[in-house]
Amino acid sequence: MNLSAIYHESKDNYCYPLNENELVINIKTGYDVDRVILYYGDPFKGGIMGGDYVAETYRIEVAECKKLQYHKFWSVIVKPEFKRCKYYFELIAGSEHVFYIEGGFMTEDEFKSHRGMRQDFFFPWMNKADVNFVPNWVKSTIWYQIFPDRFCNGDETINPENVKEWALPNQSVKNSECYGGDLQGIINKLDYLKELGITGIYMTPINVSKSNHKYDTTDYYKIDTNFGDKQTMQKLVSEAHKRNIRIMLDGVFNHCGEDFPVWQDVVKNGPKSKYFNWFMINEWPFNKGYNAMEGKYYTFAFEDYMPKLNTNNPEVINYLLDVCTYWVNEYDIDALRLDVANEISHEFCKKLKERMLSLKSDFYIVGEIWHNSMKWLRGDEFDSVMNYPLKESIDDFWLNKNTTRDDFEHSINRCYSMYMKQTNDVLFNLLDSHDTIRLVTELGDIDKFYQQMAVLFTMPGTTCIFYGTEVALEGKHDPDCRRCMPWNEIKNGDYNDRIEIMKTLIRLRKEKNAFRSSNICFTKHTDNERILSYIKKDDKGEDIEVILNCSDEDIIINKTCEVIFSRLYDGKVLKQNGFIIIKR
Amino acid sequence: MNLSAIYHESKDNYCYPLNENELVINIKTGYDVDRVILYYGDPFKGGIMGGDYVAETYRIEVAECKKLQYHKFWSVIVKPEFKRCKYYFELIAGSEHVFYIEGGFMTEDEFKSHRGMRQDFFFPWMNKADVNFVPNWVKSTIWYQIFPDRFCNGDETINPENVKEWALPNQSVKNSECYGGDLQGIINKLDYLKELGITGIYMTPINVSKSNHKYDTTDYYKIDTNFGDKQTMQKLVSEAHKRNIRIMLDGVFNHCGEDFPVWQDVVKNGPKSKYFNWFMINEWPFNKGYNAMEGKYYTFAFEDYMPKLNTNNPEVINYLLDVCTYWVNEYDIDALRLDVANEISHEFCKKLKERMLSLKSDFYIVGEIWHNSMKWLRGDEFDSVMNYPLKESIDDFWLNKNTTRDDFEHSINRCYSMYMKQTNDVLFNLLDSHDTIRLVTELGDIDKFYQQMAVLFTMPGTTCIFYGTEVALEGKHDPDCRRCMPWNEIKNGDYNDRIEIMKTLIRLRKEKNAFRSSNICFTKHTDNERILSYIKKDDKGEDIEVILNCSDEDIIINKTCEVIFSRLYDGKVLKQNGFIIIKR
Repeated sequence: MNLSAIYHESKDNYCYPLNENELVINIKTGYDVDRVILYYGDPFKGGIMGGDYVAETYRIEVAECKKLQYHKFWSVIVKPEFKRCKYYFELIAGSEHVFYIEGGFMTEDEFKSHRGMRQDFFFPWMNKADVNFVPNWVKSTIWYQIFPDRFCNGDETINPENVKEWALPNQSVKNSECYGGDLQGIINKLDYLKELGITGIYMTPINVSKSNHKYDTTDYYKIDTNFGDKQTMQKLVSEAHKRNIRIMLDGVFNHCGEDFPVWQDVVKNGPKSKYFNWFMINEWPFNKGYNAMEGKYYTFAFEDYMPKLNTNNPEVINYLLDVCTYWVNEYDIDALRLDVANEISHEFCKKLKERMLSLKSDFYIVGEIWHNSMKWLRGDEFDSVMNYPLKESIDDFWLNKNTTRDDFEHSINRCYSMYMKQTNDVLFNLLDSHDTIRLVTELGDIDKFYQQMAVLFTMPGTTCIFYGTEVALEGKHDPDCRRCMPWNEIKNGDYNDRIEIMKTLIRLRKEKNAFRSSNICFTKHTDNERILSYIKKDDKGEDIEVILNCSDEDIIINKTCEVIFSRLYDGKVLKQNGFIIIKR
Repeated sequence: MNLSAIYHESKDNYCYPLNENELVINIKTGYDVDRVILYYGDPFKGGIMGGDYVAETYRIEVAECKKLQYHKFWSVIVKPEFKRCKYYFELIAGSEHVFYIEGGFMTEDEFKSHRGMRQDFFFPWMNKADVNFVPNWVKSTIWYQIFPDRFCNGDETINPENVKEWALPNQSVKNSECYGGDLQGIINKLDYLKELGITGIYMTPINVSKSNHKYDTTDYYKIDTNFGDKQTMQKLVSEAHKRNIRIMLDGVFNHCGEDFPVWQDVVKNGPKSKYFNWFMINEWPFNKGYNAMEGKYYTFAFEDYMPKLNTNNPEVINYLLDVCTYWVNEYDIDALRLDVANEISHEFCKKLKERMLSLKSDFYIVGEIWHNSMKWLRGDEFDSVMNYPLKESIDDFWLNKNTTRDDFEHSINRCYSMYMKQTNDVLFNLLDSHDTIRLVTELGDIDKFYQQMAVLFTMPGTTCIFYGTEVALEGKHDPDCRRCMPWNEIKNGDYNDRIEIMKTLIRLRKEKNAFRSSNICFTKHTDNERILSYIKKDDKGEDIEVILNCSDEDIIINKTCEVIFSRLYDGKVLKQNGFIIIKR
């Protein structure tokens, strides 16, 4: 047996309580392992630990198994009688049996003849306070990300000074341009969004700032006057809530903008400023430029105009917690997306979660993290992260033609074995954002775009589309991905077909549990390794199957099946770049 | 290459800041891997993440390598220029090169031709608040665990009612017996301990309780009247501090004793008691017995008289934090050992750490946890745990004759690769305690006992001996391991030789950095797999080597060497069960 391939630790995504009664135990093995048996029991049933310990043990087959690039990922749920669990594994490959305890691997003989205390695995107690609880409403939410300056201009009286004329969808946009979108514009389009099926809006920042993107905050308490005021924001939230739409704001706490008065005090007074330790400064006074590159002070990336806030300083932590408290108390927001969340101190993130839950018990916090985020998803920091690993895994298959359906399976399974099950249900899935190239532009093909949409809408987690995705808005990398929403063209009916597709996908995801279900099973219909297919299982047996033809040729689907949704499929031939979603 | 053997995640003991500037990166591979190269750079040096990202990268050979049961454990320290680190590995086995990113494994061709964003590993920012800082003084502390009732009777006026006559060292003791040891007794022996070389005392509980072990607290604020009072405790701590001895109390917060008035209120009033949720109760009223076994309420193990405190309840958390605050403020204690620490909520542990540090910035917290404790040792809960895995790993070699020196090497290396380096320096090493059989009794041999002592005193971490270990006190499993300290025999000089050995080991560990150093390198002198040997490296080049003959025969040591300490060695022949510690 390839023992070096086997991995388990009694923590994080490998061993955790799903709730106060159920304990999930996962283990990774090589492909050579045929079966995994879990033995578990109460550590105190046979006496206490220092004495001659012989536990009563239960034996259970670990049945569920996902394939990863070089591993099998096995999963089981147990219910420890007294909330305590001591356990070990038996691994079987062919006729070989190996016992796996925390201390290492043993043959059956070694296991039975072992003297002294055995170092078994341990999950000592399932404390409620430590269970990773996520807000229930998020699981079925369909998110819509809005970049306010480019979404809709609802109040021309508050236009920015040099406002540009609303641009056409094929027109590139720049970082220096403002187009006059505002909060009233969003309010005006709530019915449109409601009709589309949206149940959550994620807005990029709205506080005073001198840029159009507003990730360089000048005032954490005041809404940018070009966007509206406190009353408009209150109205936006209450009107959204009337339509069962939740509101998520963008918290930019990793850094502020250079016009933030607190920063200006430091720029002027240096170490004498009472705010000097609110930032991360190595040397003062500063240069005219290249401060970040030269290590004068730390910033977001190397942007001098975005100095990093010191979230290690309790004063800063308290200031930002009060800001969030204000947003919840005054605006009644439901969720927070944290910008550059991975650079903020864990200490802040923990206190934020505690504070938000004390204000709203089902508050949702999403971190902007592009990589494995287990460290932030243990239950005491974020509920979720922006699921870029999923986006990248999907992309890999479409962008790299030598990638096979097995690669796709392994890579999707990786995304859903990195975290706890409860996290998977609320992972913030997206295929593009204000920080990436627009999906349709990246793929250069509307058919492939809809294939990826079919994947997005059948993945576990919570689904988010970037504004304009319903019309397949184009746009190259940031800032061009932030083009103006083409309301005239929508009004003219130019996009009716596209909007209809989006409405259907949203409706299906909301109506059919199988679309949202976390239970994916990959299938194979032909020898062609560029045909993707997977079944999504539903508790009630209303399973669906998704088949995507990413090969260079049309294929014939040899089954009589009820088609739920499809593109480039005529009832028999599934064309290149087409897909079908069928009942199983 | 055996790719399935390779493991790295950017968290816990695999990737963590040693301080604000240095980042430790560890990776586990199979034995087939010959070299590991780390490539790392600033994620923003080549543009921001959503765009076309080409990072400037540094290349460094990962040189340090420990052998585990089926893996090599590689380690390197880097200093990311701007506190951010994006990285990936190149693994080399023979002529095969593989690239390892967070997303998986790639050949050189795949790596170079990859389109789309690459899922590299990431340590996004080294925040001071998240660095695992441990108190510096612990690294060189020699701990002495005292079970007060059995250590020394210093005040006969406060003897328990049915006090028994001080027992002889060969006389077994029972759980029902009290022998009259008390705090004044400890004060009386501080000079003895000081002379022995002790610099820290860990006392099992001293608060009011009806048992002799006092793990069933009746009053968290009052010292047991048979032990002394507040003034005696204050005197104990101040007298200890005068002698540069730190004091650690035992916090029993997982459960209380049945006489705890708060519990009695619940027993009487059930759900009407305002303390009902201070415990974990399924059903009230209770039985006359077998409440725990029948699931009426949860307890320590299945001991009805030790009901579990609900450390998920903020009221309980605050009550216990106030207790600890009182102990620090009133007694001036330096450290806390948490009983059954693994069953207490993480939430409590985090708040405890925060509170204690606010009172004493170098306070030390040790959890009683017998298994892998990474979850508690991330820096925001405990500084350390009782290092039972080390005890068990050492035991394995002595108790299981088929165990080889390679097994020993792997198993010791496992103990020191489970946690962060800073934790390893303060791990609470012990070979027995009030919860285990006495080491000399377990081994049944005084020579083997001293061999293990030689190992204990040359292991990384902080060393603790249980009272009486200096005279090799005997005792079977709990409660017999808690025999009376043989002061008369000590006074008569019966144990002079043994005490001298202990003094020497303590002195050597304090004087010679190599004894404490975390740098162990296992060596081989003969083909005999029952001869253990390892070098402990010192920064200043004053290395030592420990050689232990655990085989069935005497061996000849063929080197001219300066012996620092030895047993059963005549300058040439190292007898069975002997050891030498030499200069290298």
